Amino acid sequence: MQELTIPLNPASSVPLYEQIYRFIISEIHEGRLSEGARLPSKRALCVHLGVSLSTVETAYGLLLAEGYITSRPRSGFFVAASGLPKALHRTPPPPTPALPDAAPRFDTSTAAVDTSAFPYATWAKIFKQVLYDRPDLLNRGDPQGDPELRNALSSFLYQYRGVRCRPEQLIIGAGMEHLFEIILRLTPEGTAAALEDPGYAAPYRVLSQYRRPVRLIPVDQSGMDVSLLRQSDASIAYVTPSHQFPTGALMPVSRRMHLLQWAAEKPDRFIIEDDYDSEFRYSSRPIPALQGISGADHVVYTGTFSRTIAPSIRVAYMVLPESLLPAYRTQYAHAASPVSRFEQQTLAQFIQGGFYARHLRRVGNLYRARCAALSRALEDIGNVRVHANDAGLHFLISHDILSEADMLARAADCGVRLTGLSAYCRASCPAPSTAVIGFAGLKDEEIPELAGLLARAWRV
Amino acid sequence: MQELTIPLNPASSVPLYEQIYRFIISEIHEGRLSEGARLPSKRALCVHLGVSLSTVETAYGLLLAEGYITSRPRSGFFVAASGLPKALHRTPPPPTPALPDAAPRFDTSTAAVDTSAFPYATWAKIFKQVLYDRPDLLNRGDPQGDPELRNALSSFLYQYRGVRCRPEQLIIGAGMEHLFEIILRLTPEGTAAALEDPGYAAPYRVLSQYRRPVRLIPVDQSGMDVSLLRQSDASIAYVTPSHQFPTGALMPVSRRMHLLQWAAEKPDRFIIEDDYDSEFRYSSRPIPALQGISGADHVVYTGTFSRTIAPSIRVAYMVLPESLLPAYRTQYAHAASPVSRFEQQTLAQFIQGGFYARHLRRVGNLYRARCAALSRALEDIGNVRVHANDAGLHFLISHDILSEADMLARAADCGVRLTGLSAYCRASCPAPSTAVIGFAGLKDEEIPELAGLLARAWRV
Repeated sequence: MQELTIPLNPASSVPLYEQIYRFIISEIHEGRLSEGARLPSKRALCVHLGVSLSTVETAYGLLLAEGYITSRPRSGFFVAASGLPKALHRTPPPPTPALPDAAPRFDTSTAAVDTSAFPYATWAKIFKQVLYDRPDLLNRGDPQGDPELRNALSSFLYQYRGVRCRPEQLIIGAGMEHLFEIILRLTPEGTAAALEDPGYAAPYRVLSQYRRPVRLIPVDQSGMDVSLLRQSDASIAYVTPSHQFPTGALMPVSRRMHLLQWAAEKPDRFIIEDDYDSEFRYSSRPIPALQGISGADHVVYTGTFSRTIAPSIRVAYMVLPESLLPAYRTQYAHAASPVSRFEQQTLAQFIQGGFYARHLRRVGNLYRARCAALSRALEDIGNVRVHANDAGLHFLISHDILSEADMLARAADCGVRLTGLSAYCRASCPAPSTAVIGFAGLKDEEIPELAGLLARAWRV
Repeated sequence: MQELTIPLNPASSVPLYEQIYRFIISEIHEGRLSEGARLPSKRALCVHLGVSLSTVETAYGLLLAEGYITSRPRSGFFVAASGLPKALHRTPPPPTPALPDAAPRFDTSTAAVDTSAFPYATWAKIFKQVLYDRPDLLNRGDPQGDPELRNALSSFLYQYRGVRCRPEQLIIGAGMEHLFEIILRLTPEGTAAALEDPGYAAPYRVLSQYRRPVRLIPVDQSGMDVSLLRQSDASIAYVTPSHQFPTGALMPVSRRMHLLQWAAEKPDRFIIEDDYDSEFRYSSRPIPALQGISGADHVVYTGTFSRTIAPSIRVAYMVLPESLLPAYRTQYAHAASPVSRFEQQTLAQFIQGGFYARHLRRVGNLYRARCAALSRALEDIGNVRVHANDAGLHFLISHDILSEADMLARAADCGVRLTGLSAYCRASCPAPSTAVIGFAGLKDEEIPELAGLLARAWRV
């Protein structure tokens, strides 16, 4: 059995389980853990490392889900790297170095939103009206979400995103993870799901929890590589075609057609279209949603209000294809919607009254200007390339000389918290020396100061 | 291979997957499916029965989770009944017969709540104030829930339930299922969980989804049978000690001590104390929560506002023992709370201002009177025994001559929808010819009419 002494950093922003997970992957990739090698038992490893059992469980769970290791009953865990598809045999990036825990001067988190732009007075007025007019909302509502909200959304999505759906296909949920869990329960157990790499952590987490096989498909400048998706055995593909997270790639129409064609070839193939940030496309007209291009039989369309309204609004929605509706109704007929009905009704009126569309236009102009101002300011820094593409609430920034770790560490020393692109990469990383910078939470007047701090930090 | 022709009733309130699941269990128990017998493949069965694949998947998933069947890779599913603990070898009740779908005159669902008693004006006034004073609540809050609500709850639970916790141990969630999922992710993968039988469907559903082994422990007049729990390999026990659902049994202190002792014997044993309906105990002083009796190291205490305030308030809470907090923080540090912060803050002020305690007293008096009036009215019906025990929002009612199925069918014919006790039973059913009647949704003036209808329905 291999002894594993893993250099853990409890102060890191990377959770301990992920440090263990990444360490073992790198040991496998670099040949120090070879195929068939036996790993320490979970209990032995947690004692050895001085971490909780659940930390090791989570790390081993991820490695199992991805096929890096296998488990044999009563004998333990073994390296199974040869079982991985070729496309996934890439050297993983080094772990993101630990960041200092003190609050930085600037936190460029991609989750931030400028809530000062939200027409709060209008929202509160509608909310108050709903409160006073509708005490009946205390009673249990439709598990799919209140019909008024589903009606308003179905018109809105048709008009703004070309999504074609009946309100009966819409399901309102408490955030994307909640909806993603529903999708998994509607699709057969053993089905492998393809995720973008780099990509969001949340779908990955949910898939691991549900023990679904995960296939990581590299992303290029057009989004998920559909030819590599074809080589995999996945029948679900989760994509962010409007603004790939975090690379920002826009999936062009030709790639979209290939993806839809892949899905149409088998009845049990589905695309989960996370249309996040489609609301924020500044230079060109948005490309209609995948869901609206095809007959929509193979697309689950999803979106959320957490980024367009405010992070505390945990309301997300999805459009199920007709073929998944019977299974949904069987399993969820008796479920209770976790979303506040008062918030649902307020949202319905906010959309119906045109306030939502107006807010999106206003905040779109604001973010466009902020994106342009920040990218201009950063382009002036030597040896830096800015990959802003007139969309979304963040962009990538690369340095020609510094490593990613150096970029982050030096920025942190100057009070700027950045995230490395590698933090979102699992098996493949499309660019070295690259950081992700979210600008939605910045104030316009702070931009020169931020650029000045980074210029100082990255001087070589 | 066995052919299974299952008499499915698509109009039944029992979901199709559960009809399949129950049929197979009864075939096993009655020896028509013997140990080692091979079941049809999922695909063959769904084609044969004309149901969706996911329906069969769900049924097989439940049977696997409970150990009724096993799966061998590439060869299929086989009956494995002999693997069940002895206590669980009981004849399951016959499936609940289908109920007519037309809306009945009276629906005695146990989920109903009298929202007319809620001080809505006060609630709306606080909510309005929160809306106007706190636009900052648009920003992301603490994943564990807003500190104000956790502070208010921790004092309230100490004062009213004897629960001892720091606000740091409290987690606010979107309903009990959400919290139950969190608990499962904090405990080791293979751990078996013991559920009360009869009992709630929700924990059962979540355990099956997480592929956790389930041990069904029969309930007697004192709640879960701890001696049978001891014979099982479970290390988590989910109990409703204040008012066992649905039998209404109150767990006496001696049984509570045995249960706590069971938990204290091993470091990884936990009791999940669902303190539901503890707020509604009419004749005696409530027994303090289990959590407060012991050192609380082995109890996860849970409760919800859905029954005390209104079904649409999907706010539940749990108190984690200190030993589970590090794992919680590792896994959920970056999660977003799915609960509306505006509702959290309104609730916090509602509790802090004493409105919640006043509401509980008021609604308690109202339900006590309704419970007494209904049980008196029903006792006058011939051959009927009412098992009201001055607590909760429902009670059991038995008939000396009619079968359970006849009780329900005849009541339905007279416009009264009742649920059979067997609908909550999985492997053991403590009483034949018994129905569950919820009274919280009834109007007081309707009681004579309801009793009259049942008297007519059950005349023999």
